[in-house]
Amino acid sequence: FQNVQCMQVKRWFVMFLIGICTGLVACFINICIDQISAIKYSTVRHFTKMCRDEACMEYALLVWNGFNVTFVTIAAFMVAYIAPVAAGSGIPQIKCYLNGVKVPFVVRIKTLITKVFGVTLSVAGGLSIGKEGPMIHSGAVIAAGVSQGKSTTFKIDGKVFEDFRTDTEKRDFVSGGAAAGVSAAFGAPVGGVLFSLEEGASFWNQSLTWRIFFASMVSTFTLNVVLSYYNGDPWTLSNPGLVTFGKFTGQAYYGYEIPIFLLMGVAGGLLGALFNGLNYRLSVFRLKYVYLRLSCVTEAALVALVTTTISFTMIYFISDCHPIGSNSSPEPLQFFCDDGEFSATATLFFNTPEEALKSLFHDPLGAYKPVTVGVFFCIYFCLACWTYGLGVPSGLFIPSLLTGAAWGRLVGIFVHYVFPGGHFSDPGKYALIGAAAQLGGIVRMTISLTVILIEATGDVTYGLPLMLVLMISKWVGDYFNLGLYDIHILLQSVPLLPWEPPAMAHNISAHDVMSHPVVTLNTIETVGKIVDAMSHHHHNGFPVVDPNEVTDRSFGTYRGLILRSQLIVLLKKEVFNETVGVTSLRQRIRLKDFRDEYPRYPGIKDIKVKPEHRQYHIDLRPFMNPTPYTVSQNSSLSRIFRLFRGLGLRHLVVVDDHSQVVGIVSRKDLARYRVFHHHFKLELEELHISI
Amino acid sequence: FQNVQCMQVKRWFVMFLIGICTGLVACFINICIDQISAIKYSTVRHFTKMCRDEACMEYALLVWNGFNVTFVTIAAFMVAYIAPVAAGSGIPQIKCYLNGVKVPFVVRIKTLITKVFGVTLSVAGGLSIGKEGPMIHSGAVIAAGVSQGKSTTFKIDGKVFEDFRTDTEKRDFVSGGAAAGVSAAFGAPVGGVLFSLEEGASFWNQSLTWRIFFASMVSTFTLNVVLSYYNGDPWTLSNPGLVTFGKFTGQAYYGYEIPIFLLMGVAGGLLGALFNGLNYRLSVFRLKYVYLRLSCVTEAALVALVTTTISFTMIYFISDCHPIGSNSSPEPLQFFCDDGEFSATATLFFNTPEEALKSLFHDPLGAYKPVTVGVFFCIYFCLACWTYGLGVPSGLFIPSLLTGAAWGRLVGIFVHYVFPGGHFSDPGKYALIGAAAQLGGIVRMTISLTVILIEATGDVTYGLPLMLVLMISKWVGDYFNLGLYDIHILLQSVPLLPWEPPAMAHNISAHDVMSHPVVTLNTIETVGKIVDAMSHHHHNGFPVVDPNEVTDRSFGTYRGLILRSQLIVLLKKEVFNETVGVTSLRQRIRLKDFRDEYPRYPGIKDIKVKPEHRQYHIDLRPFMNPTPYTVSQNSSLSRIFRLFRGLGLRHLVVVDDHSQVVGIVSRKDLARYRVFHHHFKLELEELHISI
Repeated sequence: FQNVQCMQVKRWFVMFLIGICTGLVACFINICIDQISAIKYSTVRHFTKMCRDEACMEYALLVWNGFNVTFVTIAAFMVAYIAPVAAGSGIPQIKCYLNGVKVPFVVRIKTLITKVFGVTLSVAGGLSIGKEGPMIHSGAVIAAGVSQGKSTTFKIDGKVFEDFRTDTEKRDFVSGGAAAGVSAAFGAPVGGVLFSLEEGASFWNQSLTWRIFFASMVSTFTLNVVLSYYNGDPWTLSNPGLVTFGKFTGQAYYGYEIPIFLLMGVAGGLLGALFNGLNYRLSVFRLKYVYLRLSCVTEAALVALVTTTISFTMIYFISDCHPIGSNSSPEPLQFFCDDGEFSATATLFFNTPEEALKSLFHDPLGAYKPVTVGVFFCIYFCLACWTYGLGVPSGLFIPSLLTGAAWGRLVGIFVHYVFPGGHFSDPGKYALIGAAAQLGGIVRMTISLTVILIEATGDVTYGLPLMLVLMISKWVGDYFNLGLYDIHILLQSVPLLPWEPPAMAHNISAHDVMSHPVVTLNTIETVGKIVDAMSHHHHNGFPVVDPNEVTDRSFGTYRGLILRSQLIVLLKKEVFNETVGVTSLRQRIRLKDFRDEYPRYPGIKDIKVKPEHRQYHIDLRPFMNPTPYTVSQNSSLSRIFRLFRGLGLRHLVVVDDHSQVVGIVSRKDLARYRVFHHHFKLELEELHISI
Repeated sequence: FQNVQCMQVKRWFVMFLIGICTGLVACFINICIDQISAIKYSTVRHFTKMCRDEACMEYALLVWNGFNVTFVTIAAFMVAYIAPVAAGSGIPQIKCYLNGVKVPFVVRIKTLITKVFGVTLSVAGGLSIGKEGPMIHSGAVIAAGVSQGKSTTFKIDGKVFEDFRTDTEKRDFVSGGAAAGVSAAFGAPVGGVLFSLEEGASFWNQSLTWRIFFASMVSTFTLNVVLSYYNGDPWTLSNPGLVTFGKFTGQAYYGYEIPIFLLMGVAGGLLGALFNGLNYRLSVFRLKYVYLRLSCVTEAALVALVTTTISFTMIYFISDCHPIGSNSSPEPLQFFCDDGEFSATATLFFNTPEEALKSLFHDPLGAYKPVTVGVFFCIYFCLACWTYGLGVPSGLFIPSLLTGAAWGRLVGIFVHYVFPGGHFSDPGKYALIGAAAQLGGIVRMTISLTVILIEATGDVTYGLPLMLVLMISKWVGDYFNLGLYDIHILLQSVPLLPWEPPAMAHNISAHDVMSHPVVTLNTIETVGKIVDAMSHHHHNGFPVVDPNEVTDRSFGTYRGLILRSQLIVLLKKEVFNETVGVTSLRQRIRLKDFRDEYPRYPGIKDIKVKPEHRQYHIDLRPFMNPTPYTVSQNSSLSRIFRLFRGLGLRHLVVVDDHSQVVGIVSRKDLARYRVFHHHFKLELEELHISI
C-alpha cells in the first residue's frame, strides 16, 4: 500500500508549507506595522517637538489623528466591502469551523488578504487592539488554501493535493494552521497545539497532533529566522513570536505571595465578567443599529478619532516625567517633559501596545506614578471594550493583557507601599499576574493560555501562579457570564456543540430530539423527486430507504445515507438513465468528479434539469454510504451527544427496532439543548439556532 | 439538579487529594533515598579514605557491594513475593490500563507499597535506574485508591465517593494520577497532562483535562513546598520536581548549530533502536528462562553486584583528577586523587544518577577527559539495557538521559575541538540535546517528552531544538523497531488498540472480524441457562435477544446488552422468581448493590446457586442496557475501530439489516489486526493475544 505512505509524506509536507507560509505572513504583518509606525511616530514626534516651542499643539493632534483615522478607515472599508467575516479576531469563527459548523467565507483567500492588510492598518492606526488574534485566523485560511492547492477566487487549480479535498482532511489542516498562527503570534508552539486541541479537536489523534506540532514549530522557526535577520542579528534566533514578554530573570516568587495572586485572580474574573457584560450589550446594540456598511466604517473612524484624542489629552495633562535612563525602553519619549527627561504617560499611550506591555512588565518600581497607571487602566479598559466587535480585524489578547498589566502593576505598587520590605519590590511580577488574570477572565481558556503565557514569558518559573490565577479567574467569571468568544458565537446563533452533554440529557431520548417527518429517497429514485426534495429542504443528507413498509410512524427500511453534495454532482453529470436496472452507469462518474467540485458545490437552483429527464431514474445504491452510524429511537440524548462529539458527525439517522427510519438528528437539534450554569442553577434552554 | 453540581465539586476534591498524596509520596521516596544514600556514601567514602593509606581497597569494595546487593535483593524479594506487577517502570501497564485493558493487580494498594519501597531501595542500591517512571505508576495507584475511597486489602470502606465506582470514572481519575506522577517526577505539570493525553486519552474531554491539570499542579506544588522545607529554604519554592536539570542560563543556541543537533537526533534514534533491540532479545530470554521467583531475585542481586564492581573498578583505573572548585558539584569526591583534587570519574559513577546528569549538563569544558565520558557511556548503556526489565521497580528516563548526556557531551567536546572558536565552547548544551535524542530514540514519545524536557530545563529557549531532535530520533528509531514500552506491551500480548485503524481496514468488514457463534440470553431467562453460559464462556457482556426467529445465521432480535458483572450481582442477590411475569422484583435490588461489589466481582464459581433455583426465571429487561451501540455487519473495520477508540467501547454487537444479532466484536478481535510499518513495507498481521 504505497498510496498510504505517500499520503502520509504529503500530509507532512503540506504541514511544512503551512508552517512556512504562516510564519512569513506573520513577518510581513510585523514588518509592515513596524515601518508604518516608524513613519507615523517620527512625523508626530517631529510636530510635537516643533510645537512645544511654537504653541501649535493642535497641529500635532491633527497630524496624529489624520494618520490614525485614515488607516482605520481604509481597514474598515476593506472589511465592509470585501470580506465582512474578516472583522474581529476570527477566533470565534475558527472555533465554530473546527467544531464542524460550516461558516460561510471563513477560509477564503479574500478573507485572508483583508485580514492581513486590515490588521496591519488598524494596529498602525493606534486602535486598542493586537495583531495576535488575527494571526490565528490567517493561519487557518493559509492552511485551507495550501491543503486544497487551488483558489476559486484566482481561478487557479494546482492539481496537487487532490486527495485532501474532503471536509475531514481540510479540517485537520485548518487546525494545524490555527496552531501555527498561535505559535507565530506568541512564539508558543506547544501552546498552539493545545489551543487547537482545546478549541477544536474532539478526538485526540496522535499522528495528527504531531503534524500540528510540526507546523507550529516550523512557523515559529520561520518567524524567528526572518525577524532576527530583519533586526540585524541573524544567528541569535531571539524573536520566536510577534509578541514576547521579555526575560523575567531573577524575579522568582515566594510562597507567601500566592494568596495575593489568588485575590488578583478573583479580581481578574470580576473585571473580565464586567468587560464581557459590557461588550455583550454593545454587540447587541450593534446588531440592532449598526449593520449598514457605511455606519460600520463611520464607527471605526470615530473610535480611531476618540482613541487618538484621548491619548493625546492624557499625555498633555498627566505630567509624569522621569530622567532618561531609568527606563527599559530603547527610545525615550520626551513629549511635554523637560529636556533630558521622558514622559512615562507617553510610554503607555503613545507606544505600540506590545511596547507598553513590556514596559509595564519590566520597568523598575517608581517608573510610573500610580495615577498614570490608574488612568491608563480605566481608559484602556473602556476603549478595548468599545473596540472589540468593531468592523476591523482586531485581536483581543494584547488589550486584555495590557489592561491586566496596568492594574496588576497598581497592585504591585500598593503591596510594596503596605509591606515596604525588599520582598515585594518588583511590580513587574504583579503586572504579569494581573495580565494573566484579566485575559483569563475575558476569554476563559485555561490550559492553552497557561502554556502560551509560559512560553511567551520564556520561563517556567511562573507556571504555577499563572495556572492558579487563570483557573480562579475563569471560575469567578463563569459565575457571571460566558467567555467573550462564546458570547459572540451565541450572538451569531451557531449550532456549536459544547464539550459535555447537557446534564439532563439522560432523560431525553432520541425520539424527543429528532426531526420528525424525514425526507427520504428510495434506492431507485426518479430525478424529479430528487430535485423536488432538494429544492424544498435544505438538509445536507438524505436517508435512502426501501419503500416496502412505509407506515405513518416510519419511513421505510434504512438502506444508507446520501449527501446533498453527492446528489448535486450526480445531477450535474446527468448520471441517470431512462430505464430502471442499468447499473453500468457507474463507469461514467469518477471520484475525481466529486473532488473537482469541492468545496463549492453549486446550489440546486443552478442545476438545470431538462423536463424530459425528470422521469429518468437514478440508482443511488452505488453512491450512498451503505453503513452509516445509526441510533435506536430509545437512546438517550447523552449517548447521541457522545457519538456526535466523538466521531464528528453532522447527522444521525434514528431507526426503530426493525431498521425502519423514524427520524433524523442533526447538529442543530443537539445544539438547541444547552445548559446554563447561571448563578449555580441549571437551566435547560432551547436556543434559537439560525444557521 | 443539585446532584450534578455536587458530583463536580467532589471530582475536583478527589483530584486535589490525588495531587496532594502523589506529591507526598514523591517527597517520601526522595527523602528516604536521600537519607539512605547519605549513610551509604559516607560509610563508603570513609572506607576508601582509610584504605588509601592502608591499602585495603577490597574492603571498600566489599562494603559498597554489601550495601547495594542487600538493598536490591530486598527490593527484588518484595516485588517477586508481594506484587510482581510492580516490576519495571509501570508505564506500559498504565498505558494498557488507560487504553481500556484490564491488567490484573495494577492499581492495588499492595502494588503501590511494593513500588514505593522497592524503588527507594533499588535506587539507593545504585542500580542504573531512575525513580521517575515508578512515580507515574504510583500516582495512578493513588488515584485509583483515593477515588474509590476503599481498600479491599485493608478491608476499609470509607463509604465516600461511592458515585465514582464505575470503570469510566475510575479511569478518568487514574489518568489524573498518572499526570500528577509525571508532574511530581519532573516538575512538569503541562508535560504531565500531555503525557496522560498522549498515552491514555482517546477522547479529549475538556473539563476532565482541567481536572487532570489541577491534580498535576497540586502535586508539583506539594512536592515543591515539602522539599523546599526539607532543604531548609521553605519560601523559595525551588524544587518543583524530583529531578531538575538546573538552570541553562545564557547558553542560547545559534542557527548554524541546528544541523549538528539534527545529526545528533539521527544518532539518538540509532542508539535507541539498538537499545530496544538488545532489550527485546534480553526480555525474550528472560521470559523463557528467568521466570521463577528466586531466579528473578538472584538476577537482580547479580546486576547490583556487577554494577557496583564495575563502577568501583572504573573509579580506580581511570584517573581523571581536577583541582577542587572547577566543578559545580557541592561535594567534591576525592577518592583516588591527590589531596585538593577530586575525581571526575567518581562524579559520574559514584553519585546518584540525577547528580551525574546535572554535572554533565553544567560542568564547564574540560571538567572531564573525553575517555572518562566515553567509557562511562559504553558501560552505562549496557548496564541500563540489562537493568530494564529486571524484577525491581525501575525508571527508564534517567538512565536514558544519562547515556544520552554522556555521548552528547562527547559530541560537544569534539565540536569544540574541530571548530575552536568561542561559539562552541559549551558542551553542556550538547549534553542536553544528546540526552533528549537518546530518550526519544528509546521511548518514542514526542509531544509530552518535549514539554517535560522543557519544563525540567526551566527555560523555553531550547524548545525548538528539543522538538526537532525528539522527532528525528523517533522517526529514525521507528524505522527499526517499536518504542521500548510498546515492545514490552507486545511481549505481554495485551489487546492494546493503536491510535489509527490499520491501513487496510477499509477492505475488512465487521463480518470478517466478529466472533461468530454468539452466546445470547433471552429477555426472560432461566437461572440455569445463565449460570451455564457464564461458566462456559468468559465474555464480559452477553447480548439479550427475543428468541423469535433464531436461524442458523442469526441469534434472535437484539434487545439489549447485559454485563457479566451485572449478572453476577443478580445471581448473588437472588433476584429471580419462581414464576414468569412478576416484575416488582426490581425493588429488591438497588444501584448500591452493584457499586458495593465494584471492582472485584466474585467469579461465577463463587456463586452458589441452589439446584432448585435453576428453573427460576430472571427478567433481564430492567437491568440490561436497552440501547447499546451496534454496528451493521457490512461496516468496515476502520469504522468499528473509530467507534471503539472514540467511545472507549469494550464490545460491540453486530446486527444484520433486521436487528438480528449475527456476531459480537470485542477489543481482542480488533487488536488482532495490527499493521507493521516494517522497513517501509506494510504488513497486516494477526497477533496472538493472550489476555
